[in-house]
Amino acid sequence: MWDTVKNFFYNLSPTRIIVGYYLLTVTFATILLSLPIARQQDVPWSFIDSLFTAVSAVSVTGLTTVSIADTFTPTGIIFLIIILQIGGIGIMALGTFFWLLFRKKIGLKERQLIMTDQNQIKFAGVVNLMKHILIIFFLIEVIGAFILGLYYLRYFSSWHDALFHGLFSSVSATTNAGFDITGSSVKPYAGDYFVQFIHMLLIILGAIGFPVLIEVKNYLQKRRTVYHFSLTAKITTVTYFLLAIFGAMVFFIFEFSKFLSEKNWHESLFYSLFQSVSTRSAGLVTLDLQELSTATLLLFAILMFIGASPSSVGGGIRTTTFALNILFFFQFAKGNRIIKVFKREIHEEDLLKSFVVTAFAVLLVVTSVILLSFTEDVSLIAIIFEVCSAFGTCGMSLGITDDLTIFGKILIMILMFIGRVGIVSFMFMLGGKEKKENFHYPKERVTIG
Amino acid sequence: MWDTVKNFFYNLSPTRIIVGYYLLTVTFATILLSLPIARQQDVPWSFIDSLFTAVSAVSVTGLTTVSIADTFTPTGIIFLIIILQIGGIGIMALGTFFWLLFRKKIGLKERQLIMTDQNQIKFAGVVNLMKHILIIFFLIEVIGAFILGLYYLRYFSSWHDALFHGLFSSVSATTNAGFDITGSSVKPYAGDYFVQFIHMLLIILGAIGFPVLIEVKNYLQKRRTVYHFSLTAKITTVTYFLLAIFGAMVFFIFEFSKFLSEKNWHESLFYSLFQSVSTRSAGLVTLDLQELSTATLLLFAILMFIGASPSSVGGGIRTTTFALNILFFFQFAKGNRIIKVFKREIHEEDLLKSFVVTAFAVLLVVTSVILLSFTEDVSLIAIIFEVCSAFGTCGMSLGITDDLTIFGKILIMILMFIGRVGIVSFMFMLGGKEKKENFHYPKERVTIG
Ligand SMILES: [K+]
Ligand SMILES: [K+]
Repeated sequence: MWDTVKNFFYNLSPTRIIVGYYLLTVTFATILLSLPIARQQDVPWSFIDSLFTAVSAVSVTGLTTVSIADTFTPTGIIFLIIILQIGGIGIMALGTFFWLLFRKKIGLKERQLIMTDQNQIKFAGVVNLMKHILIIFFLIEVIGAFILGLYYLRYFSSWHDALFHGLFSSVSATTNAGFDITGSSVKPYAGDYFVQFIHMLLIILGAIGFPVLIEVKNYLQKRRTVYHFSLTAKITTVTYFLLAIFGAMVFFIFEFSKFLSEKNWHESLFYSLFQSVSTRSAGLVTLDLQELSTATLLLFAILMFIGASPSSVGGGIRTTTFALNILFFFQFAKGNRIIKVFKREIHEEDLLKSFVVTAFAVLLVVTSVILLSFTEDVSLIAIIFEVCSAFGTCGMSLGITDDLTIFGKILIMILMFIGRVGIVSFMFMLGGKEKKENFHYPKERVTIG
Repeated sequence: MWDTVKNFFYNLSPTRIIVGYYLLTVTFATILLSLPIARQQDVPWSFIDSLFTAVSAVSVTGLTTVSIADTFTPTGIIFLIIILQIGGIGIMALGTFFWLLFRKKIGLKERQLIMTDQNQIKFAGVVNLMKHILIIFFLIEVIGAFILGLYYLRYFSSWHDALFHGLFSSVSATTNAGFDITGSSVKPYAGDYFVQFIHMLLIILGAIGFPVLIEVKNYLQKRRTVYHFSLTAKITTVTYFLLAIFGAMVFFIFEFSKFLSEKNWHESLFYSLFQSVSTRSAGLVTLDLQELSTATLLLFAILMFIGASPSSVGGGIRTTTFALNILFFFQFAKGNRIIKVFKREIHEEDLLKSFVVTAFAVLLVVTSVILLSFTEDVSLIAIIFEVCSAFGTCGMSLGITDDLTIFGKILIMILMFIGRVGIVSFMFMLGGKEKKENFHYPKERVTIG
């Protein structure tokens, strides 16, 4: 039994497994959400809307062409919660799984566990570790659900309603899905800092990346000895929080005399912080995006485009990609070709990869914006925002999702898919593994920029 | 005397010379255009508008906050022609000069001429070659001026007017400046294919790049022996024409049922072709840009952003940069790490450089768009269009240039400057030469995208 599973994994490429898993889950989700018990009786069923909701749920994006609260029954919402687990956490876990198997950049304890034998224990060790982490992740969701559920008693008359909303909120925040059953995201709690704080905490735990969670867990378990965090974990954590602070600060500046003009300091603080954290990947909002200025919306589009940590529940080009881009070109401008960060040097292959990913993403997003501005009859900022939101699997929207043409909906689905599986995976899906060169031509320099 | 000049050039870095030359020329141009004899009497003088016109002229962009025809006297227009020569051709010639001195990727004849002695004849040879080429460039302008001038006799009642318009048109097209004294660009000749054809020819000769002109000249002079065009020349020429054809085709598709709906095939062909060629860097138009769809305007913005050939009169990231980006990431997707093109391999340093240039340009343009959408009260598409036009030193505009705030005008000037001197030069200006590393850290891989 173990041998069969093991051989299956060894023979397929990680990318194919992730993409295959994604497509399977989407099919499963479309069927599930189309079942009569999942849907309210007076709502007409359409294939494209069911597929769109399924893709949005599996890629934990949160863009919807229909209102979740008005379309699905409580059973349907339970289905949605299950799909978010299978999609969001499943793909993250698979990504981390291959990261563990192939990168081997993990703590000492794990390294001993996994690498004692080349084949046998390695695989079992990884599976074991994954099990531990999945349990931790579910625990986070359950604890979040209880905290929010109990607290929601002040908003809901029945225990049942409060706990159900708590559960959905917790899952939606932790998986960074950003779906809501309030019909208006987190806006009802715009004045409740406790609810927002818990949401932000859950969002960060989901979007900071599985590898970081693993390393922090290892660190906490053996805090007396020296523990080495991986370079990936360090870069992604620092970038994640810097982006959150940067986003909040610029939001505050841009909206100071506009949206925030009548708000006091703690309202301004929470509006700035919550939206900024949410652009990383969650897509939950405490305000009406239509009220914001174009400059702020463009800022959010950029933040969504960058997205969350690698091997997380988020999308976009990923924090590490962005960090390497920025690091390299400041160093390049200073005349350095070798990037030193946290007392490590960045591999040249990773630098090139980070630029290819960004270039591909820019091309993808720009092409999508141009195509949609040709096919859709909505404002340019709404299109830019929607495209970045889909690619970043963030799910914020200026409300155009249900007005899109069939072409527009398909394009947004493709963007959610590529954003979720990641551009590196997507490119490998198209092309395959790195090839050895058989022959060479002479090199010749080219004049650049 | 030669020794002093030689030492001066050897001691300063090429970048500093180009930037210094640019700033000197801007100062000179601002003074020249502020002189009472240059300006019509009833037009009030403002420092920011004079500076803006000077920067726009030196960087051969063509964006203006004032109407050339209504602001300047014939003497002022002669000044403008002189500034276009000094700015456009001067910076191109300087760029090519250093390219010749340092890259040594030139024809056999030149190599013999230049490299016989390491110091003496090399410098003199380059100077000699440059002289030849500058003469060719002026010849192109003069021939263009006569052809257009004589032809314009059917539009103007006096020889003087026809030749003056012919001269200005020729200089404006060849230097890709895109200024006009008609008050409405090439629109008066929207039905005259001969005028458009000559314009396109002159535009291409200016924007295809000095190195290409040099190599073609060499090729024509010794066509019997085998001649090797440089990789830069091949890549830039192919990319230049592919972009022109691509732009014309997509323009045709986007506007088929809109702007072109009432036009016949040859009108459609010339509208598509002229505008597409013009986005490379010239900025001349035969139609009212306001009539075009958002999709087309975005397409033009991208084409302007890419810009013209390196060492040409154009701006943007340059064709070679774009070509290397595209080549690399299609090869990367196929699993290749080594880029083969025209039986040569691309140097890894150039690949990295091309990505840094693009990443920096994207960051620059995006930041500018966000800042302007904060400070200016105009539509988003107009801002995107203006920013890309300035960075690509193209000069097309949706008519917002004169409505910009002081901040907006300064930002657009900075974009024209960076676009014109090129991002590589700009970065070297900030930082300096490549450094040797004294110590190394261990390398560690990072998870990307
Ligand atoms: K989301
Ligand atoms: K121009």
